[in-house]
Amino acid sequence: MNDVKAAATSPRTGRRTIRKRGKQIKQLPWGQPVNPHKRLELLSADAIEAIHMNSLRILEEIGVAFHLPAAVDLFAEVGAVIGDDGINVRFGRDIVEQALSTVARASRLTPRNAGHAVDIDTEKLAFATVLGPPNCHDIERGRRPGTIADFADFVRLGQFFNIIHMIAGSPVEPMDVPVEIRHLVSTKVMLELSDKVPYVFCHSPQRIHDVLDMIAISRGIERDDLIESPSTYAIINTNSPLQYDAPMAAGLIELARYNQTPLITPFSLAGATMPVSLAGAVSLSNAEMLAGLVLTQLANPGAPVVTGAKTLNVDMKTGAPAFGSAEANQSLQIGAQLARRYGLPYRASNFTSSNAVDAQAAYESQAQLWAGVLAGANVIMHAAGWLEGGLCSSFDKFILDVEILQMMASYLQPVEVSDETLAFDEVVSVGRGGHYFGTDHTIASFESAFYLPLISNTKNYGQWAEEGSLDATQRAHALCRRALDEYQKPALEPDRQEALDAFVARRTEEGGAPIDW
Amino acid sequence: MNDVKAAATSPRTGRRTIRKRGKQIKQLPWGQPVNPHKRLELLSADAIEAIHMNSLRILEEIGVAFHLPAAVDLFAEVGAVIGDDGINVRFGRDIVEQALSTVARASRLTPRNAGHAVDIDTEKLAFATVLGPPNCHDIERGRRPGTIADFADFVRLGQFFNIIHMIAGSPVEPMDVPVEIRHLVSTKVMLELSDKVPYVFCHSPQRIHDVLDMIAISRGIERDDLIESPSTYAIINTNSPLQYDAPMAAGLIELARYNQTPLITPFSLAGATMPVSLAGAVSLSNAEMLAGLVLTQLANPGAPVVTGAKTLNVDMKTGAPAFGSAEANQSLQIGAQLARRYGLPYRASNFTSSNAVDAQAAYESQAQLWAGVLAGANVIMHAAGWLEGGLCSSFDKFILDVEILQMMASYLQPVEVSDETLAFDEVVSVGRGGHYFGTDHTIASFESAFYLPLISNTKNYGQWAEEGSLDATQRAHALCRRALDEYQKPALEPDRQEALDAFVARRTEEGGAPIDW
Repeated sequence: MNDVKAAATSPRTGRRTIRKRGKQIKQLPWGQPVNPHKRLELLSADAIEAIHMNSLRILEEIGVAFHLPAAVDLFAEVGAVIGDDGINVRFGRDIVEQALSTVARASRLTPRNAGHAVDIDTEKLAFATVLGPPNCHDIERGRRPGTIADFADFVRLGQFFNIIHMIAGSPVEPMDVPVEIRHLVSTKVMLELSDKVPYVFCHSPQRIHDVLDMIAISRGIERDDLIESPSTYAIINTNSPLQYDAPMAAGLIELARYNQTPLITPFSLAGATMPVSLAGAVSLSNAEMLAGLVLTQLANPGAPVVTGAKTLNVDMKTGAPAFGSAEANQSLQIGAQLARRYGLPYRASNFTSSNAVDAQAAYESQAQLWAGVLAGANVIMHAAGWLEGGLCSSFDKFILDVEILQMMASYLQPVEVSDETLAFDEVVSVGRGGHYFGTDHTIASFESAFYLPLISNTKNYGQWAEEGSLDATQRAHALCRRALDEYQKPALEPDRQEALDAFVARRTEEGGAPIDW
Repeated sequence: MNDVKAAATSPRTGRRTIRKRGKQIKQLPWGQPVNPHKRLELLSADAIEAIHMNSLRILEEIGVAFHLPAAVDLFAEVGAVIGDDGINVRFGRDIVEQALSTVARASRLTPRNAGHAVDIDTEKLAFATVLGPPNCHDIERGRRPGTIADFADFVRLGQFFNIIHMIAGSPVEPMDVPVEIRHLVSTKVMLELSDKVPYVFCHSPQRIHDVLDMIAISRGIERDDLIESPSTYAIINTNSPLQYDAPMAAGLIELARYNQTPLITPFSLAGATMPVSLAGAVSLSNAEMLAGLVLTQLANPGAPVVTGAKTLNVDMKTGAPAFGSAEANQSLQIGAQLARRYGLPYRASNFTSSNAVDAQAAYESQAQLWAGVLAGANVIMHAAGWLEGGLCSSFDKFILDVEILQMMASYLQPVEVSDETLAFDEVVSVGRGGHYFGTDHTIASFESAFYLPLISNTKNYGQWAEEGSLDATQRAHALCRRALDEYQKPALEPDRQEALDAFVARRTEEGGAPIDW
């Protein structure tokens, strides 16, 4: 593992020696934004109920296949109708209602630094890094397959920026690490370089147990202690239409048993894996989500669930998912209403289809963020660094995204209206045609009155051109390097570090986990 | 004038002969989006009332200066207290309430093509081109002072794209036209190249009368006929704090007398021309707006008003206005609530401070658009083409903005929830693990199901790289040229054309209008 860390840090160490140390980056303090506003309602309550009822009908009359006998058995125990194929389960609304009566609607995820605990509920927001792309990119080094060194740098960025609350699994896939031990190596790096909420991939029960063991070690507790004090979360996808594959079904069961938080978010494509109409697509996606939610409650009543049943559309020109489309924004908000119907926290994403860190990437991400937050999203996955519809993690976009996340957090700050802020006396004293640059009120508020941008620029054209005409992406790239320079590794107690080293060494010696399950 | 037109069109004509004619650009049909959603409320009703009451107190106890005797006289007639300086007017809430009881809250602006009439009210949206920058830019020709040829090309773009409802004054200032006749020359080009709602600058009564005469000629009517059938609109600014200069005061009076629509939108800077606190700044800005609104009703009870009392903040690092800040989005939404308090339509803007058509330009514009529309904005000024905090009009950004405007219009389309769109039978027939690519439902909806992007790209990285790795701005630039190629000049009746030519010739011979008033 020392080699891995050395590879990850040495290019940056090299840069550090030749670069001047500038001013420290000023950023927002740690904290979860709270959405104080009434949630936007895209559809009427009646329309939401019609979508919900259609979901129930799908579960009752068509059913969902679980490619895992243990899951099917759980459904059979409560009287679900099992198909002749042995995998299809059909069940009535009573079973859904029962599950909705026990599901936990809030959870606190505590990482090894309790000061970085994150509340997952229907009021607060939590932003997670990008998850899963096999490639990464920055404008200096170009596009390339992800390595554990890149993985480590993304974890460092997630740790460095306070607006990032959770590290998401592989912010880039470390393609240079064998699959059998990838979860061990990458989780070790994640836990060493960050003390924020870590992620667990649901590839198989053994992998989940390994990661839970490692998280427990990082906290100085046992795996079973995580049931009382959860630490982690995972995305659960469906194999649409109407299927859960074995890893996902097992993931739901294991997460529920250990009381960790699944984000049940079918990846749904209107006109491909789902009906072309948004209402139909969201309703089918919601049915799939409900089936997964029921499974968690069958495995462990009272386990938490976050939903994200929405849908993207297929770009009718390319056949590819349109990650930042107008329809994606609509379905995102319909999904949020369904989540509210169930009282569940809601997951959204900072998606874009763009292949470059350009205006498209920015307008798609920004629209997704606004649409999601205003409709009531609570967990924003891929909040920083997502590009190319998920096939590439971008260092430069990570910074741009941090900027728009910080701006969103600032926008959500309540505006105080009081005699002091209305400042009548000041208006009297400045009078007509004067200015407010030097008033006591302005001077007292100078530092804190407004959000201080990371890279947004208000310089006039002449100044900006003199300084090299750097566009936002170039400025983001420079800031990314500064952030990696300023990053400080959070201390890990030596006994825990030793235990972690020993665990990974032992499990690696045992061959890690088999590739296919 | 023929020279002017030739200069405007010849570069494009030249290109046309050497460029292959591609497919026609597919765009949304003409129509004003309607916002079907409940408006976002940033502040409580009590807080809005406190801001309103503070505005009334400012008008009562401090007053507003009008640097125009005719305006002061109108206030004196209704019992306002005139200051010793002869320009400050103070008045009670009774006068404000009286004005709010007569002001028109809706207006239909009819241009020479009645099919392009625009409703200004509290439900619909209208998007206007950028207005006023002295420079323009595209990635091919670079940054340069605006000319009448550039002006003409922006008017063509505004005419070409259906999502643009109104042409705004000078989408770029034609710096090559002498100021005395600039309003004549530019209005002539605007009326010849576009049959959409035109704009009138409020530089002086004579200029306003000239432009109203020309608009009337283009419609085959008389200037006084515009009172019954309004055609145009103008931005009214204040000289903050608490002053209206003579052109703006005269503009309010003339617009009111002719029943045209002023957008009374003080350009307010928290920490500079206004208190540093948003509540204080918006309240002061609102007081200025109310003073202007009162003047319109004194000049002509029942005249229409659109408000846009909001505030930007000063970037505390550069001292420049932060056009796309988090605080700008907050104050935009507070202003919208005040507009709703008065039942008035609300103006927002598609602002950015960025100097390049980059990610910053896109995320700032997109946030302004979402914040404005969701809070209830009705008229979006500078909706396409604004850059550099208003010092530059960008051809390339015009296209990017058209894309985000079309996406917003698509997002605002109601989502139908019905048995047909829920598509239960289709879900049954596709079943588990199938796909929806070839279903009747998908095939029938293929063309119309989803918004078809102008430049947003969902191609995978390989395809995109093969096609030249063009970023969104480069693709926008190419589309801009195609749009200028496809643009068709709307026919103008020969007698009206002759009358317009004659009017401009006569007024030019008379020397146009004096520079200073």
